[in-house]
Amino acid sequence: MIQLYDTTLRDGMQGEGMSLSAEEKVRLAHKLDQLGIDMIEAGFPASNPKELELFERLAAETFEHAEVAAFGMTRRRDVSAGADPGLRILADGFTPVCTLVGKTWRLHLDKVVRVDPEENLAMIADSVAFLAATGKRVVYDAEHFFDGYADDSEYALRCLRAAAEAGAETVVCCDTNGGTLPGRVAAAMADVVAAVADGVRVGIHCHDDAGCAVANTLAAVEAGATHVQGTLNGYGERCGNANLVTVIPNLQLKLGYGCLDDERLSRLTEVAHFADELLNFPPDPDQPYVGRNAFAHKGGMHVAGVNVDPATFEHVEPERVGNSRQVLVSELSGKGTVRSAAAAAGLDLDEAAAQRVVDRVKDLEHRGYHYEAADGSFELLLRKETGEYEPLFRLESWRAIVEKRADGKVETEATVKIWVDGERYVRTAEGNGPVNALDRALRSAITEIYPQLEDIELVNFKVRILDEDKGTGAVTRVLLDASDGQEVWGSIGVSENVIEASWEALVDSLERSMQPARVRTQPLK
Amino acid sequence: MIQLYDTTLRDGMQGEGMSLSAEEKVRLAHKLDQLGIDMIEAGFPASNPKELELFERLAAETFEHAEVAAFGMTRRRDVSAGADPGLRILADGFTPVCTLVGKTWRLHLDKVVRVDPEENLAMIADSVAFLAATGKRVVYDAEHFFDGYADDSEYALRCLRAAAEAGAETVVCCDTNGGTLPGRVAAAMADVVAAVADGVRVGIHCHDDAGCAVANTLAAVEAGATHVQGTLNGYGERCGNANLVTVIPNLQLKLGYGCLDDERLSRLTEVAHFADELLNFPPDPDQPYVGRNAFAHKGGMHVAGVNVDPATFEHVEPERVGNSRQVLVSELSGKGTVRSAAAAAGLDLDEAAAQRVVDRVKDLEHRGYHYEAADGSFELLLRKETGEYEPLFRLESWRAIVEKRADGKVETEATVKIWVDGERYVRTAEGNGPVNALDRALRSAITEIYPQLEDIELVNFKVRILDEDKGTGAVTRVLLDASDGQEVWGSIGVSENVIEASWEALVDSLERSMQPARVRTQPLK
Repeated sequence: MIQLYDTTLRDGMQGEGMSLSAEEKVRLAHKLDQLGIDMIEAGFPASNPKELELFERLAAETFEHAEVAAFGMTRRRDVSAGADPGLRILADGFTPVCTLVGKTWRLHLDKVVRVDPEENLAMIADSVAFLAATGKRVVYDAEHFFDGYADDSEYALRCLRAAAEAGAETVVCCDTNGGTLPGRVAAAMADVVAAVADGVRVGIHCHDDAGCAVANTLAAVEAGATHVQGTLNGYGERCGNANLVTVIPNLQLKLGYGCLDDERLSRLTEVAHFADELLNFPPDPDQPYVGRNAFAHKGGMHVAGVNVDPATFEHVEPERVGNSRQVLVSELSGKGTVRSAAAAAGLDLDEAAAQRVVDRVKDLEHRGYHYEAADGSFELLLRKETGEYEPLFRLESWRAIVEKRADGKVETEATVKIWVDGERYVRTAEGNGPVNALDRALRSAITEIYPQLEDIELVNFKVRILDEDKGTGAVTRVLLDASDGQEVWGSIGVSENVIEASWEALVDSLERSMQPARVRTQPLK
Repeated sequence: MIQLYDTTLRDGMQGEGMSLSAEEKVRLAHKLDQLGIDMIEAGFPASNPKELELFERLAAETFEHAEVAAFGMTRRRDVSAGADPGLRILADGFTPVCTLVGKTWRLHLDKVVRVDPEENLAMIADSVAFLAATGKRVVYDAEHFFDGYADDSEYALRCLRAAAEAGAETVVCCDTNGGTLPGRVAAAMADVVAAVADGVRVGIHCHDDAGCAVANTLAAVEAGATHVQGTLNGYGERCGNANLVTVIPNLQLKLGYGCLDDERLSRLTEVAHFADELLNFPPDPDQPYVGRNAFAHKGGMHVAGVNVDPATFEHVEPERVGNSRQVLVSELSGKGTVRSAAAAAGLDLDEAAAQRVVDRVKDLEHRGYHYEAADGSFELLLRKETGEYEPLFRLESWRAIVEKRADGKVETEATVKIWVDGERYVRTAEGNGPVNALDRALRSAITEIYPQLEDIELVNFKVRILDEDKGTGAVTRVLLDASDGQEVWGSIGVSENVIEASWEALVDSLERSMQPARVRTQPLK
């Protein structure tokens, strides 16, 4: 079996635009665990208060399968391993696995850190031995390994052996600058596997600066590596890290190396998209295996061919990685799926109504809606089909005004005019932004009638610009999460106008909380 | 020398969102020519009136170096080659090169086209011979070659030999379904090179369904292929074609195969971005070699290392492919980083001013600013420190009103009141959203004074909610990319109010385009 080591939460976070709270990192760690990742590198436990908080939270979590790894560096030149503050933190931490990075390339020793090559070997050995003595299982990351190997192969191998002989469970060859090509990776790895003692696992860590991170990882495994590092969706600095979402199915479905059981592998698409959603990145539609276009067929001959035999035009069965042929645009577009979603919401949807929902979803997705994260809006859509939908109010109009005044202050005010039970309500409120002001104005009107709505909190608000390249003329998708303190549900709005899109999501989030079945079965606190 | 064959205009156009007029295709063909591409596959000259128009235009163009190739299929089963209308069009066309695609995989012969394998060989041979007899140089694309080879290697090789013996100049092994991995490509190609007669060129055409199109192409060349097909930026259906922008520098700078002379290679970044601009795609910042992040450095040690010796952290010199080093400004950044960023913008920042910038950036980052992708705003910040900043206008006030009317229509209107050179301008505009309306109102005022600003386009607009868990009360970060058609720069705004944040970014993006140094050195068209 290949040992899968994910470094999304550490090396992946070096990528542009990567930003996650400690809470979000914990959620992502659980997703990685569910996927079947063996080791999750979470970061350096003391680089800042946020990392410290993350490790405190992780210590309290239970994972089904994955082990958490903490990351650090070999000891400083001038202190013993036991006196090195970074190593002490690793030793005292809860993680069963500690990953240490150290130098391998003489160019770096000479020009960057100015450490004597022999001293560097001692730093590696001391640091690994210190952690191993505290009972930690040590993964040793040999930084710039392939450049170091090209420069002075004997010294690069000595670095690995120093770690292995000091008790490292795994030694990892890192292509830190990312420019090595598969032929050189294969040759060096064969040498590494021969050089380290039996029983020491050999690993690979690649970057995509030459567009070969995936191929390099495969070449290393074919040469004997059994520990594979990478990130979800290839996140990482510069051109990114090796993309585990591509590496895993290549290893398993094409080269026959065991990575994940079939059921877990079929969650690959979902996990890849979850990570993008969490990071507020639009999923790459062209991503191998999991992209929306990865199994898209254009033209009659392709579709006809696939109908006769999918192998004619598909390199693997999309279902194996949880993806689907593009004729099925989304997970919700099958009638069966729609009916089971309805049943889950306590709604009885007949065949014809399910077909109408499928058609409607297709149309809405074409316009930019996306129900994967908007279960609340999707439930309302189902209710509208079954006649079990009750609008909260009838809208007459609303207006939001944002004004930057001459004194530099920004004022925001919104007015809503609505009708409930034949009565007209006009309310105005201020807010720290137009959506906030609209929310307050609307609630100030309807909580007079439905006081329970006061307890609904908007817990999450995401804005995604579709067709980003249309500048400020692009379509905006707003996703809102609301909660009554027990449950969380998502809603969606889409419009060229960000305020209109937000309003739509806002109304859905409140209406969803008030639907009859819910009010009956789940009294709001 | 490797023969570079670009199929952006034919196979690349199968990708999602790919759309170019005949005129734009001609412009792109000239760019490819300037880059030094040897053959440009333009499409099938009679598939529709637009293609016909393209070939008419191309016939009238002069190219410095490149030859144009027309694309078609082997003859139909029931007619002679000379009577096949598609082949007649190719024969009558102006292009010196004709590329023919034909079947190689028995699965397709049996299940899709239902052609007898011997008849298929005759179709290949007849079609190639017919075109060769008219004086065309024929490139034969063996569709699904690698799948066919895995299924029945002898038959797959017979298809290639049929083309070669009938007079094809080049036979190309295509991984049409894109799922083949480098090991299998290398093995098959070695066999192909041995099987076809000396003097027949062997080529490779890959797709990226397994994330290995680049590596597969390299493996084929290392096994003896000397004709390389691919597209700019990897455009193409599903997961895309082999990316020539990555393949070329890998072959030339790392494996020592001649592709382009140095001067042409240094246009690679420009050509890659030109194609994205033409197609209205935001350039992938993480693309190998040419992406904005491809040579980006974060943190003090990287920057210090690169200053000592670029090889410490860069796999090639960015200038060789026309890219440049990017120093990312982040929480970790020190005075040195700020000073080199200033120098890159042509600003002289002394030690004390650099310290003030560092302090200011720290404070701003704490409030949610993030300058990695907002180089335009960062430059303005530097200019404010050096006194080389000129505001475009003095703001009195602005106001945006979004109204959902009783008839269901949404109306958006914005008014700006500004002063320029002692003169007051009040302008109102409508828009499809509040930011769009503000943009229009502001520009309608200032383009009277600075008509160049009409040419600034907002090419990208991203909204990110920080502290998403604060619901609609969260802080909003807006990132805008603007372009004058040559250069792209990013700007940022942060506020609790999404409109205020957008306004801030908008003003930065326009001001950045008008700073003195820039106006002096780069007159806007």
